[in-house]
Amino acid sequence: MKKLSILGSTGSIGTQTLDVVQMHPEHFQIEGLAAGSNIELFMEQVKTYKPRKASVGSKALADEIRPYLPSGVELYYGPEGLVEVAAGTEADMVITAVVGSAGLPSTLAAIQEGKTIGLANKETLVTAGHLVTSLAREKGVSLLPIDSEHSAIFQCLNGEKLSEVTQITLTASGGSFRDYSRAQLAEVTVEAALKHPNWSMGSKLTIDSATMVNKGLEVIEAHWLFGLPYEQIGVLLHPESIIHSYVEFHDGSIMAQLGSPDMRVPIQYALTYPERWPSPAKRLSLAEVSKLHFKEMDFERFPCLRLAFECGKIGGTATCVYNAADEVAVARFLKGEISFLHIETVIEKVLAAHTSIAAPDLGTIQEADRWARDLASRA
Amino acid sequence: MKKLSILGSTGSIGTQTLDVVQMHPEHFQIEGLAAGSNIELFMEQVKTYKPRKASVGSKALADEIRPYLPSGVELYYGPEGLVEVAAGTEADMVITAVVGSAGLPSTLAAIQEGKTIGLANKETLVTAGHLVTSLAREKGVSLLPIDSEHSAIFQCLNGEKLSEVTQITLTASGGSFRDYSRAQLAEVTVEAALKHPNWSMGSKLTIDSATMVNKGLEVIEAHWLFGLPYEQIGVLLHPESIIHSYVEFHDGSIMAQLGSPDMRVPIQYALTYPERWPSPAKRLSLAEVSKLHFKEMDFERFPCLRLAFECGKIGGTATCVYNAADEVAVARFLKGEISFLHIETVIEKVLAAHTSIAAPDLGTIQEADRWARDLASRA
Repeated sequence: MKKLSILGSTGSIGTQTLDVVQMHPEHFQIEGLAAGSNIELFMEQVKTYKPRKASVGSKALADEIRPYLPSGVELYYGPEGLVEVAAGTEADMVITAVVGSAGLPSTLAAIQEGKTIGLANKETLVTAGHLVTSLAREKGVSLLPIDSEHSAIFQCLNGEKLSEVTQITLTASGGSFRDYSRAQLAEVTVEAALKHPNWSMGSKLTIDSATMVNKGLEVIEAHWLFGLPYEQIGVLLHPESIIHSYVEFHDGSIMAQLGSPDMRVPIQYALTYPERWPSPAKRLSLAEVSKLHFKEMDFERFPCLRLAFECGKIGGTATCVYNAADEVAVARFLKGEISFLHIETVIEKVLAAHTSIAAPDLGTIQEADRWARDLASRA
Repeated sequence: MKKLSILGSTGSIGTQTLDVVQMHPEHFQIEGLAAGSNIELFMEQVKTYKPRKASVGSKALADEIRPYLPSGVELYYGPEGLVEVAAGTEADMVITAVVGSAGLPSTLAAIQEGKTIGLANKETLVTAGHLVTSLAREKGVSLLPIDSEHSAIFQCLNGEKLSEVTQITLTASGGSFRDYSRAQLAEVTVEAALKHPNWSMGSKLTIDSATMVNKGLEVIEAHWLFGLPYEQIGVLLHPESIIHSYVEFHDGSIMAQLGSPDMRVPIQYALTYPERWPSPAKRLSLAEVSKLHFKEMDFERFPCLRLAFECGKIGGTATCVYNAADEVAVARFLKGEISFLHIETVIEKVLAAHTSIAAPDLGTIQEADRWARDLASRA
């Protein structure tokens, strides 16, 4: 019986994590659930799984649901509530599926308590990779990736030595507008941007796929997760998202992980690692797929990806600033304030104005984050 | 320093094994070399590597080269010579790269002496899989595959549990005539048949690729190597030979091994396992390859593959008979005695006339082999 806490239980990854739990109810126990504002779905989850601790986004939301809680569920709220659910239960493993910078303090708290991390919050490693990985090492905590690309790399490294790796390659579908020219990109609408060809995901993530910021964040995350320099990390356009990522070794061999696009597979792998359990996920038939396509990544076409490599190599607070600027820019685009292409302009301007501080502590990171958000809201 | 004996040193796999040795001369020592009749190349090899023991196909050939041997090389010949090179040296590992049934007694002798086997002789497992695998288990000997497909499966199983495998799939380029109709196949010439699109290999193997007998032998070999029932072994047409084979696990995940078609990579992997060493093999660029194609295997188009699964499931002497009938049929085709499509007729007729004997000993296998060859020469 594995005891889990899920941070961000009503989001895309959170609900699919609970789908996996549902497939193997005898093997999992939910210790904690935390969500933001989708309290209708959250209350359903709380009633179904009866966690020890539950947390929502604000005091007002907590007050609203308190009367309807099953007995034995302790209710919390806000950032402190998130930390409570992450670190204050008997969970063996914490799934960090909240979106945005909010995931960092709760993830650090869970690592501090020695809990295995199922990492779905990209910002954790992007903003504070050096703090998170060194604390995890110190506490002997495993960071198990949930993202399909990182899970693929992680699986390709099974039974292999990192010292024998020459290159890891993250595949990228190219997002909604992979076949658009720059001129066409200038005209895209919010509605069009929210349609992703292969994966069902949240709206922030869908926009980040179209700008390739998502892949940029994944590159930075891969750098920290696998301890590889940026020179050993590549990105390849692969529209079908069937090869989820791959690893090249110095003998010329490449190991790749493939599958139908179904997030329940990498989620379950993190939950059951090092075992693999049966899954009802649709089997991949390569004969049915019939063709796979690959194309060199075009850094002119996708400048946000180039910027990710650049700020990754700079390090320090630069990656945090990249992420914060993007969050604000995407929000502004979704509100109709700026055009699609202006997202990259915002990120570029904010990064250009930033002087990176090396090896930042949590306070410095938060300060850089605030500074970047402020500038991004006006850039 | 790894000590090697190579059986079949002048053939395609043998010479490429020596290429790999040449790349890492400080790590390998050649204890034994055995060849058939290509004594010119063999003498070059003997002079370069100065093995303790050397063997050629016949007494006449041995007498011919004896005067030119470097001092300290003991010379043998014939089947006994092959066994001497396989089992009578201080080699840690024996590469069994002779073609045909001749590989079996020498491989068994090497296993008996506790030597790791780099298995490139398909017939060993096809004719006597039950004897070879049980002796290897008894002696604690590893059978490391050298064939690119089996090496791929072996690599995909790194760090994984066989009990979690649902299916292994061997990819098949489809050989020289993959786009021919049955009517066109009836007309193919020996010259046309000897051109293989992706791999450079010997003539028997090239014909076996075009008839899909080669894939059939690989299926039977995979059954023994990985201990999986035939129901869990599949074959997929993949003209580019870039995905060398793959494994599906019960969580829906697929692990695949990819690379440029270069036999030195799987050969080196067997030689250095569980390590991977640097190799000058051409790096695979999926962006350069640009497209990969896959197609369901057509068992009507390739009846020899269907027959392989059928005789594999029957077991006993049936797979030995399949192999022997094919050897004779291919030789008859290469001599211009029979047409390309008559190869499958010969195999089908011989199998139809055979009553399989379960769990045969070596004598029974050799008798079935002789019986099949005799019938195949007239069928």
